[in-house]
Amino acid sequence: MDTAIGAPTGASANEPDGATSTSARWLYAFDEGDGKNKLLLGGKGANLCEMTQIGLNVPPGFVVTTQACLAYLDSPDRELPDGLMDQVEAAIRDLESKTERGFGDPANPLLVSVRSGSALSMPGMMDTILNLGLNAQTLEGLIAQTSDARFGYDAYRRLIQLFGKVAFGISDEQFDKQFELVKEQAGVDTDAGLGAPELEEISRRFLEVVHDQTGRAFPDDPLEQLEMAIKAVCGSWMGKRAVDYRREFGITPEMASGTAANVVTMVFGNMGSDCATGVAFTRDPATGENELFGEYLMDAQGEDVVAGIRTPKQVREMAEEMPEMHRQLIDLRDRLESHFHEVQDFEFTIEQGVLYCLQTRDGKMNAVASVRTSVEMCEEGLIDREGAIMRVGPADLEQMLHPHIDRRHDAPALAQGLAASPGAASGRAVFDADDAERLGQDGMDIILVRDETRPEDIHGFFASRGVLTSRGGKTSHAAVVARGMGKPCVAGAEGIDVDVLHREARVGGVTIAEGDVITIDGSTGNVYLGEVPTVEPEFTDSLSTLLEWADEFARLGVRANADTPDAARSAREYGAMGIGLCRTERMFNAADRLPIVLDMIMAETTEERQEALDRILPIQRSDFVGLFEAMSPLPVTIRLLDPPIHEFLPEEHQLEREIDQLEHLREAVEGMEVLADTARLLDDLSGDGAGLGTVPDFVDSRVLEAAIARKKQILLRAQALKETNPMLGHRGVRLGLTHPEIYRTQIRAILEAAAECVKKGIEVRPQIMVPQVCTGEELEVARGYLDDLRPEVEAAYGVELDVKFGTMMEVVRACLRAEKLTEFAEFFSFGTNDLTQGTFSFSREDAENKFLPLYSERGILTDNPFEVLDSEGVGRLMSLAVRWGRESSPDLEVGICGEHGGHPASIQFCHEIGLDYVSCSPPRIPVARLAAGQAGLSAEGTQDL
Amino acid sequence: MDTAIGAPTGASANEPDGATSTSARWLYAFDEGDGKNKLLLGGKGANLCEMTQIGLNVPPGFVVTTQACLAYLDSPDRELPDGLMDQVEAAIRDLESKTERGFGDPANPLLVSVRSGSALSMPGMMDTILNLGLNAQTLEGLIAQTSDARFGYDAYRRLIQLFGKVAFGISDEQFDKQFELVKEQAGVDTDAGLGAPELEEISRRFLEVVHDQTGRAFPDDPLEQLEMAIKAVCGSWMGKRAVDYRREFGITPEMASGTAANVVTMVFGNMGSDCATGVAFTRDPATGENELFGEYLMDAQGEDVVAGIRTPKQVREMAEEMPEMHRQLIDLRDRLESHFHEVQDFEFTIEQGVLYCLQTRDGKMNAVASVRTSVEMCEEGLIDREGAIMRVGPADLEQMLHPHIDRRHDAPALAQGLAASPGAASGRAVFDADDAERLGQDGMDIILVRDETRPEDIHGFFASRGVLTSRGGKTSHAAVVARGMGKPCVAGAEGIDVDVLHREARVGGVTIAEGDVITIDGSTGNVYLGEVPTVEPEFTDSLSTLLEWADEFARLGVRANADTPDAARSAREYGAMGIGLCRTERMFNAADRLPIVLDMIMAETTEERQEALDRILPIQRSDFVGLFEAMSPLPVTIRLLDPPIHEFLPEEHQLEREIDQLEHLREAVEGMEVLADTARLLDDLSGDGAGLGTVPDFVDSRVLEAAIARKKQILLRAQALKETNPMLGHRGVRLGLTHPEIYRTQIRAILEAAAECVKKGIEVRPQIMVPQVCTGEELEVARGYLDDLRPEVEAAYGVELDVKFGTMMEVVRACLRAEKLTEFAEFFSFGTNDLTQGTFSFSREDAENKFLPLYSERGILTDNPFEVLDSEGVGRLMSLAVRWGRESSPDLEVGICGEHGGHPASIQFCHEIGLDYVSCSPPRIPVARLAAGQAGLSAEGTQDL
Repeated sequence: MDTAIGAPTGASANEPDGATSTSARWLYAFDEGDGKNKLLLGGKGANLCEMTQIGLNVPPGFVVTTQACLAYLDSPDRELPDGLMDQVEAAIRDLESKTERGFGDPANPLLVSVRSGSALSMPGMMDTILNLGLNAQTLEGLIAQTSDARFGYDAYRRLIQLFGKVAFGISDEQFDKQFELVKEQAGVDTDAGLGAPELEEISRRFLEVVHDQTGRAFPDDPLEQLEMAIKAVCGSWMGKRAVDYRREFGITPEMASGTAANVVTMVFGNMGSDCATGVAFTRDPATGENELFGEYLMDAQGEDVVAGIRTPKQVREMAEEMPEMHRQLIDLRDRLESHFHEVQDFEFTIEQGVLYCLQTRDGKMNAVASVRTSVEMCEEGLIDREGAIMRVGPADLEQMLHPHIDRRHDAPALAQGLAASPGAASGRAVFDADDAERLGQDGMDIILVRDETRPEDIHGFFASRGVLTSRGGKTSHAAVVARGMGKPCVAGAEGIDVDVLHREARVGGVTIAEGDVITIDGSTGNVYLGEVPTVEPEFTDSLSTLLEWADEFARLGVRANADTPDAARSAREYGAMGIGLCRTERMFNAADRLPIVLDMIMAETTEERQEALDRILPIQRSDFVGLFEAMSPLPVTIRLLDPPIHEFLPEEHQLEREIDQLEHLREAVEGMEVLADTARLLDDLSGDGAGLGTVPDFVDSRVLEAAIARKKQILLRAQALKETNPMLGHRGVRLGLTHPEIYRTQIRAILEAAAECVKKGIEVRPQIMVPQVCTGEELEVARGYLDDLRPEVEAAYGVELDVKFGTMMEVVRACLRAEKLTEFAEFFSFGTNDLTQGTFSFSREDAENKFLPLYSERGILTDNPFEVLDSEGVGRLMSLAVRWGRESSPDLEVGICGEHGGHPASIQFCHEIGLDYVSCSPPRIPVARLAAGQAGLSAEGTQDL
Repeated sequence: MDTAIGAPTGASANEPDGATSTSARWLYAFDEGDGKNKLLLGGKGANLCEMTQIGLNVPPGFVVTTQACLAYLDSPDRELPDGLMDQVEAAIRDLESKTERGFGDPANPLLVSVRSGSALSMPGMMDTILNLGLNAQTLEGLIAQTSDARFGYDAYRRLIQLFGKVAFGISDEQFDKQFELVKEQAGVDTDAGLGAPELEEISRRFLEVVHDQTGRAFPDDPLEQLEMAIKAVCGSWMGKRAVDYRREFGITPEMASGTAANVVTMVFGNMGSDCATGVAFTRDPATGENELFGEYLMDAQGEDVVAGIRTPKQVREMAEEMPEMHRQLIDLRDRLESHFHEVQDFEFTIEQGVLYCLQTRDGKMNAVASVRTSVEMCEEGLIDREGAIMRVGPADLEQMLHPHIDRRHDAPALAQGLAASPGAASGRAVFDADDAERLGQDGMDIILVRDETRPEDIHGFFASRGVLTSRGGKTSHAAVVARGMGKPCVAGAEGIDVDVLHREARVGGVTIAEGDVITIDGSTGNVYLGEVPTVEPEFTDSLSTLLEWADEFARLGVRANADTPDAARSAREYGAMGIGLCRTERMFNAADRLPIVLDMIMAETTEERQEALDRILPIQRSDFVGLFEAMSPLPVTIRLLDPPIHEFLPEEHQLEREIDQLEHLREAVEGMEVLADTARLLDDLSGDGAGLGTVPDFVDSRVLEAAIARKKQILLRAQALKETNPMLGHRGVRLGLTHPEIYRTQIRAILEAAAECVKKGIEVRPQIMVPQVCTGEELEVARGYLDDLRPEVEAAYGVELDVKFGTMMEVVRACLRAEKLTEFAEFFSFGTNDLTQGTFSFSREDAENKFLPLYSERGILTDNPFEVLDSEGVGRLMSLAVRWGRESSPDLEVGICGEHGGHPASIQFCHEIGLDYVSCSPPRIPVARLAAGQAGLSAEGTQDL
């Protein structure tokens, strides 16, 4: 670390900031500048002032303001504003008095650095010059004082090169060429191998480079050096790199305009064994532990740490090596935190037993550390609960709550798909759900790999650690089911050619055979060959505490999307305040139920269908009992059957294949039967049993005939049920109305399950929710089912049930008819996946594959509306629906159970429009609770769009 | 016609109507009752009063009010209210004095009828009794006065049967049995064959029936008869038939409550050659001609007309037969029209040279007559223009504007489908578009019959008189194209099994072979075997006049959905004020263009695609020139390409079949090539040319190879472009943004066509419209294309163009972002087909096939929202969009171009929310103009939902 010593400038204070007056104040000493005024002093300058003024030992110096920079850039001939250099001279005199050195004093030279620094950090975008004040004479003095010629010449040649480059625009190559020539002549390989004589030669040659390139000598006068350096630093604000950077990151003049030039006294950590340099965090940025964390090197410069020539020591070792310095460092740490109320990432240098703090900024931490420090700093009284909650980024929590690829490992990805369900997992690639189940039960770690998944693959999901598909978007079956189970999923990895038939997948030239180990990262969409180390998630005590605090400030409740007792229990562990969405179709999908569901679909009459449903009823009832028990006494919101029933049928192509296979088999069997008949005949004819030998018992071809007929029936039904636009088809309440027995059976199962629980003394709060509603009349009919069945069940069980009835708000028209719906609905739950689809007329799968990428690239949509709630469109509709609904029914409960319910910005929006709760998948509950707390702390009031 | 004579009651007037007071007034003489108070007097009673009071010769009588009826029904023991019978007796005394007859006077008997009549007509639902006042004594008197014993006994036996049935509830069978017995004994077949003795015998037996069934004698006292008759008529209001009828037709107590009982003096048209009876319309109800139109019979009763025993004469013949009576009839006609200001349908009887008017009501007419009479009555000063416009039902106009099945022909329908495009047509069934084209050019009348149609069938549409499909809904390709062309279409006739391969269709047991004549009625969805007579449409001068008047009152303009110059010309004839929607994809569909479109879709690079588009450009340009010329100087709104491009590709299954066929062919050819090679070899070997004979020139199998490869490429592309929910897919502006060259080419073609016209001195007003827009940014990019190309084209042609740029409003989000869209759009055009789909999340095809029928049956939706604009949902959204759009851009032009734009109730709604115009298919323009005029005349004001 190249550093500098100094003291406040002598410029007179209390003059107004002005850009044109000669009496304007163009600079501030560190002990005078306003540490909060980053626009005027830049971030670095303001921080140096702040640290100086709270009594930290900062090398003295002063800040030339951004106003001076702008005045310089605006002047016709690029002249520094009148009066500035007078103020600089005065400030330098002040520095001289504070440091007891002289700027240009050959015996005891004062050296300074000039560093740029704007209001916003623009790392590496602007310029810095070190060691200003050195010339032939002062160099001698420096060498004499340090008794180190090598150190002196090294500092000198750095000044010449940096100054040449920044002030004169000489390219680094000009200097590097000479540097290499001298190294070559000296026969050394590394810079460290160069001695004082070689560095002296380099300095000499560098001076020649400057002369050759500029036609003038390198300026010897320190004040001339300083003036030119200030101009150069100010000019760098308009340098190409800086201009490009600001455009790229959208930095407007309101955010940062002009750079300050910080003139800082140099300090050196390489003047002997009482010197050192280092960087530290006030707390451990990896764990959040309340312990000074950092590295240092004795008798060294900053570059030595970066260059890696010597291995730095842990700061805690300083307690033995330099105990007093260590004590001062701990003290510095305490003072930083107690002043900034935030973990600090700071730089320090020890010059001859004196500790200097050179820079400090808020420490960047991972999520675990961020959560722990929030809680501990609050408990220590450094921050309040509000501050603790606002300090943690909800999105960062994701990282904590899913296994993730170890960032230290950066294996190249084999392919990339959609980040469909977060988390990372490794396992053997298996291409079939049955095999996955079998091998998974044998204890193998498995990644299920498919072109796409179907409801009948569900057992394969349970058996796998993660799912990879080559087709489908973020709402594909694979994605939705995996998210529901909290398992990682990469979907639609189109670069992978999955060949389920041959049990392999090809990516470019690579083939993944069944059993090969792969790793998927559902948080990034990356797919890796082999096992890539992952980091396991932690639900720490600190997180529990922080979320409890967040709950105190939240107006929004957080419920879970959960379909099974397991998921419900997991949701409670994450702090769910109920179930906001239980998808009953999942209960139809289990392998033991699909055959009954198939019977239901294939039923020719209502009676046949009812018969199949009667077999489903006790199964669903026991599902609900499990769910109610797991969630008691919190509310459990159950959505009646939503998808079109053809989703439960096998694919047409698969059926056709199966029929083909069966028909071939039948032909073969028939052939064999003929053969057998012939054999028997021959046996009979020969009469001596010496015919064609024993006749095997063949499969009866009639059995096959029956199987073929059944498959053909199913195929016909599948074709009849096929829809042009299935998302807009015969589903949800439409199905519930055309086939009342389905919803009636489901409602009966819910009521009976609730009654069973009540009899057992378990408190239950079922909420029955109707999907795809677009008109009050639909809801009226569905409610009729409940009103009809409830007294019957209550009488049969001798209990009274507390059941709420409500509607999904996932069809645009439902929102437009909100007042009407409240006549029948006690609660609304926004299904923002479908609502987004209807509002945009985007089919998610089609959109994400065909045009959304371009829309995002061209800025036509800032976000994917299926990920981030579109507050301007979908949100406006929601806001209207909430308003209209509450106008007619003030006590209406309103929630959201679409995927957006787990997204922080969307949660903020839900808070603003006055929802009562959000519901999301269990692993996202902590994120949602934090976001809900932060929303509660943000400006209050229901947004009126 | 059984009729009666009478005079006003003597009941004192001016008493308040009350239901309970004994001083209440329970009846009104015809010369006193308020002819407007139908609720109190019933429709018939009020009309009898009205006619009496304007001086028409109505048989005297009085009305027992509906209040009396209700009081009777409410009384615990079904007693007539106190005072009523006193008032009846007084009224009868008044009648006696007016008619100079006596009620019960054997010498000169007064006979009356009692007829029910409620505020709303309920034909045949309630009861009537004739010839009250007859008994053994008065019968003698009647016979003596008429010298006609047969007439007297006939009247008597009718009284006994009607009274027995209505007052005593004796079934008709009891009477009919006796009637038949007497006929049998007399040995006659018809009632007319019965003489006075037989009718006397019948009367005797009827009196016995009454006695047997009731245990009492038939009442001889005329007043007793009258009291019982009034009770019976009042009681019939709660009869099962009447109650069922009111429930069926939704008649509420506010509309009609209770029936009046009209007591009317009987008059007889069968008392000699100076008697007659008839029915007439004041104008011809079939043509609207201003000529008395009707039929009469001399010396006859009403029944004689109905029984058809004698053929009635035309009223005009009366001028010779009974000139004075005819003059009076003409006078009656004039008085009726000048009083009622409406065509009247009236009944009359001439009794001994005196003309009586017995009943009148507004005449029901067909559309042609309705329009003609409106215009002529207005020109005659009978009604004003407002009245003329409001008098014609817009839906009735449909009938005028399409050929329709002659209602006199009621052939049974063979099958029924959806009424997809109105009108009727007969022709030979043809199952293939190519054949249809060929045969059509030969002058054959053709109905194109397909399972479903595709863009490549378009030439078949042109060649056909109508289209019949077995699949698809009202927005299927067939339906939309047929409507656009104004040709009849029955779509989705699922009962018909269309076998395109074998060129036949099967319906139940019937097979329609290619060439068989069928008739389709696209207004009802009926399909008939053979030719059913149709009536051709007429666009009469009267209609032109009426629509011009409607235009004067309309605030809404009416534009046409038209894609070709022919359609545009037709639209102008119908009075279109511009084109509101030109669908440019139709220009891609013509047979000569599809190959180029295919090249465009198959292009691997943007350059290749541009090359194909460059070939399309001049074609589209000339399309637009034609359209602009046909429509100049009116606005022409052109929608850029909307459907997903895969719609232009052949079906996957078809491609697979073609590839199969080609591969078989290739194998065969390869085989033949081997054979040919062998043949040549043998020829060479034998050296004498006597090998296997001449070697044919086979098709080169390599040519087939190339064709197969191309088809396979197309198949792959079709598969890649396939979408899960095509309605919500990669289409409209999304396509225009991912493939800018398509929209840029279209915009260039529009601009160049406009420039060409301007150079020729033709005034053009193109409006470029972007489909499927959901966000302002999309519109901004598309507008950029225009802003970019326009100066270039203007410079090249040296003209200035007047071009408007706007957006379809067919995506929900567009409505929700209306303010934003006005930054880039000068006009909005609601595409309510897609908007309805997005709002309901209904796919029209799927919905109409699967659940909409049940929704309609159960009353969940009153109308099919794809036919009648859903004002509560979609309409609310439109209303918000109009408000938000005009708030930010007050001059915004707003129209509608969905199919609803031609529907009267929807047009009314569009008027209410302040749209500027509606656009519809050319044949619906007259309907729309009339509806717009009527909307303009209805209560003003923009609806705020």
